[in-house]
Amino acid sequence: MSSQPQGDIGLIGLAVMGQNLILNAADHGFTVVAYNRTVSKVDDFLANEAKGKSIIGAHSIEELVKNLKRPRRIILLVKAGKPVDLFIEQLLPYLEKDDIIIDGGNSHYPDTNRRYEELKAKGINFVGSGVSGGEDGARYGPSLMPGGAEEAWPHIKDIFQSIAAKSEGEPCCDWVGPAGAGHYVKMVHNGIEYGDMQLICEAYDIMKRIGNFSDKEIADVFEKWNTGVLDSFLIEITRDILKKNDDDGVPIVEKILDTAGQKGTGKWTAMNALDLGMPVTLIGEAVFGRALSALKSERTRASTILGGPKSDASAISDKKKFVDDLEQALYASKIISYAQGFMLIREAGKTYGWKLNNPAIALMWRGGCIIRSVFLGEITKAYREEPELENLLFNKFFSDAITKAQAGWRSTVALAVTQGIPTPAFSTALAFYDGYRSERLPANLLQAQRDYFGAHTFKVLPKYVSEKYPEGQDIHVNWTGHGGNVSASTYQA
Amino acid sequence: MSSQPQGDIGLIGLAVMGQNLILNAADHGFTVVAYNRTVSKVDDFLANEAKGKSIIGAHSIEELVKNLKRPRRIILLVKAGKPVDLFIEQLLPYLEKDDIIIDGGNSHYPDTNRRYEELKAKGINFVGSGVSGGEDGARYGPSLMPGGAEEAWPHIKDIFQSIAAKSEGEPCCDWVGPAGAGHYVKMVHNGIEYGDMQLICEAYDIMKRIGNFSDKEIADVFEKWNTGVLDSFLIEITRDILKKNDDDGVPIVEKILDTAGQKGTGKWTAMNALDLGMPVTLIGEAVFGRALSALKSERTRASTILGGPKSDASAISDKKKFVDDLEQALYASKIISYAQGFMLIREAGKTYGWKLNNPAIALMWRGGCIIRSVFLGEITKAYREEPELENLLFNKFFSDAITKAQAGWRSTVALAVTQGIPTPAFSTALAFYDGYRSERLPANLLQAQRDYFGAHTFKVLPKYVSEKYPEGQDIHVNWTGHGGNVSASTYQA
Repeated sequence: MSSQPQGDIGLIGLAVMGQNLILNAADHGFTVVAYNRTVSKVDDFLANEAKGKSIIGAHSIEELVKNLKRPRRIILLVKAGKPVDLFIEQLLPYLEKDDIIIDGGNSHYPDTNRRYEELKAKGINFVGSGVSGGEDGARYGPSLMPGGAEEAWPHIKDIFQSIAAKSEGEPCCDWVGPAGAGHYVKMVHNGIEYGDMQLICEAYDIMKRIGNFSDKEIADVFEKWNTGVLDSFLIEITRDILKKNDDDGVPIVEKILDTAGQKGTGKWTAMNALDLGMPVTLIGEAVFGRALSALKSERTRASTILGGPKSDASAISDKKKFVDDLEQALYASKIISYAQGFMLIREAGKTYGWKLNNPAIALMWRGGCIIRSVFLGEITKAYREEPELENLLFNKFFSDAITKAQAGWRSTVALAVTQGIPTPAFSTALAFYDGYRSERLPANLLQAQRDYFGAHTFKVLPKYVSEKYPEGQDIHVNWTGHGGNVSASTYQA
Repeated sequence: MSSQPQGDIGLIGLAVMGQNLILNAADHGFTVVAYNRTVSKVDDFLANEAKGKSIIGAHSIEELVKNLKRPRRIILLVKAGKPVDLFIEQLLPYLEKDDIIIDGGNSHYPDTNRRYEELKAKGINFVGSGVSGGEDGARYGPSLMPGGAEEAWPHIKDIFQSIAAKSEGEPCCDWVGPAGAGHYVKMVHNGIEYGDMQLICEAYDIMKRIGNFSDKEIADVFEKWNTGVLDSFLIEITRDILKKNDDDGVPIVEKILDTAGQKGTGKWTAMNALDLGMPVTLIGEAVFGRALSALKSERTRASTILGGPKSDASAISDKKKFVDDLEQALYASKIISYAQGFMLIREAGKTYGWKLNNPAIALMWRGGCIIRSVFLGEITKAYREEPELENLLFNKFFSDAITKAQAGWRSTVALAVTQGIPTPAFSTALAFYDGYRSERLPANLLQAQRDYFGAHTFKVLPKYVSEKYPEGQDIHVNWTGHGGNVSASTYQA
């Protein structure tokens, strides 16, 4: 060990993601100090992948810290939850004021809020950073979404933006906002990823079950879509997946058990949406779709009991129109999902008091991460034109696009509905669209019901404001003519 | 005060619900001791509504307890949250082992779990009881859903079943299960109530916006429906509401602002469903529907920007078929919603280790509460025939009903989709139905995607189990031909 520490940044946790991030940083000229709880992994890494690179192995936390320049910058890439707290605890005795701890794992943002506050009280700058892009992303350019102690940003900006993915020359990494904002935005990213995947699955299912397309034909459709408005990583890998045959010539995808797992971030997003009262319906349906897929044995039994419509091959006399309509359905639903995601982010900013940077968020998702797409370039543009855009659907590009996509979208959903193929995400997106563009929804009846049975009161429409119904007043009607006129106060069942 | 205490039961909290429950109990021959934090309310109550009845006023907690026979039975009907804890704290110094505290408020079940444990340690039997039916229900027969310390049940059964609503002679009250099970079941009840209300609103909206029906015509439809399979409290009050005109002849419902409020229990249900991984999609959409209704100013703006299809009056050439189809759509969607609700209850029983009584739950909801209906009589029958019924949809009555309802249901949803009227609950119910009866869902593609970008692994379908793919084995494929073969372990982004 030299007397002057050489390490630009330390990294704890040498699973694939950690190793790849280290190699990525080393490629960009940074000296990285690597540590892992099972220290043999450090030696293995140094002897193999890290050999000949600007990577220093550390066999203890103390050694890790001693090898780092000040302020120390240490990234944790360990399992979310307790391990993060344990490593922070182990690091603290060796750290000094203004040192920086970065949690690059999939931590839930309330944990990041808590850690940020706890470490702030100790003079340590804590950053929670979303990292997306899987193994390849980590190695060659992930999307990075750092938030927390803003004092840390000038010290990590150069490293983070160097190793991040680039989109048209711009790094897919910028400062997100305070406290847990980085992990929050990563959570919403994952929720949107759930939605995108569900949409692709519905398109595949429709082609397979209504169109009777082979996997090869479906792959060709995705290949074509990948050259248009849907151009994205997930469409691209879907094409690859559908083309991959097993040794016996059967596409591997057709051998896979249809029960989807989840890691929880989609669920967190949907729960947060419910909690904040934002109608993020598409992610909600995507999460529920995975839950339904998991009930395989029940579904198998149900398939023998519950009837459906007769499938009708003549339903798609025009194959090209069928595929083009489907593309529009997927595109329009995707616009809705991203609009909903940004609605949630906006509400979170208000509720948690975070100033969030919408164009930067869109740009961070533009490259490197799982949801990267040409589409996100358009979103970036929309938010750059108008950073405080109330809703993505109010941007001309998107309002034009969805209006144009509408006919194909409606045809596709109506077709699926009559043919008995489930399209929960396409359907909820369309219901949201029609609800969102409804100046009047039937919630007036709902309010009347609540007032009827629970004396919950209601307000009147502006045009009925009068002496009888003063503006803003909560009104209760004695609907039945009997019973009290007492409106609900402390208790309602 | 006599030397021997006379009170059968004490009640704290003299808001409308509390007063009405007391009067109900007094009508059934019980002596009730009434207390309220603002004691002037006790005197008012005694001097008016309670006059001449077997009701004793108490001006302090001590006086309340002293007036009660042993074991003391005390119902709290106060605002959920802190007030419940505060009253428990105030009661404890005066209580003895085996005394019973009953929380009849809308407490969140995790709070009830906690209170149950805390009081158990002190020798007090705590009961959390759902109470539904609004003011009228409380007065003349609510639905009561008690759970918690089972030792309390023999001491409160008589009072509870006496004051509860009756359905074909049977009380709509039975023991639900341990700890917070009573409040849990009440929470799901409220979630289902959200769903039922949303479904009715969608039917109203379709008749109004596609059929151009007047409120009077819509009221007549609900009146007719109330004599058939949809016969229920909520359909009945909807009819009443639609018939209620203001002084100027305008139906009051048309004057009401279309932004729905919520008290949180629907949200809790949807969040719990996400948490337990149960696809309770209809309640989810109902909660999101209220959230969307609340965005009135955004919707108003959107209505001027986002286009929809031209409305087409010829779409409903046959008015009778239109209404009959709609009835089937509402009925089928309702079957799905209740099937989902019972799926959630089943999963909660497994997850929380509660033995829950399905037929009793259905019977408790059959009368007294907001969702009371003839329909719940059929559910009671189904669970009595087969208490461990895996899914309501596997019961012959319901599988026949939904199969028969299907054509009208699909026509209605397809009509709404093409006409641009939002039906999030009808649509999600249908998507669920078609997903549930799919032996194969496209989650195989989703698993392939997850394995492609995150090495999350997958399992194969039973028919592909072989030496290459051993049963139960997690398989990872190197989809791209490059990159590692390491499957995800501790970390994935």
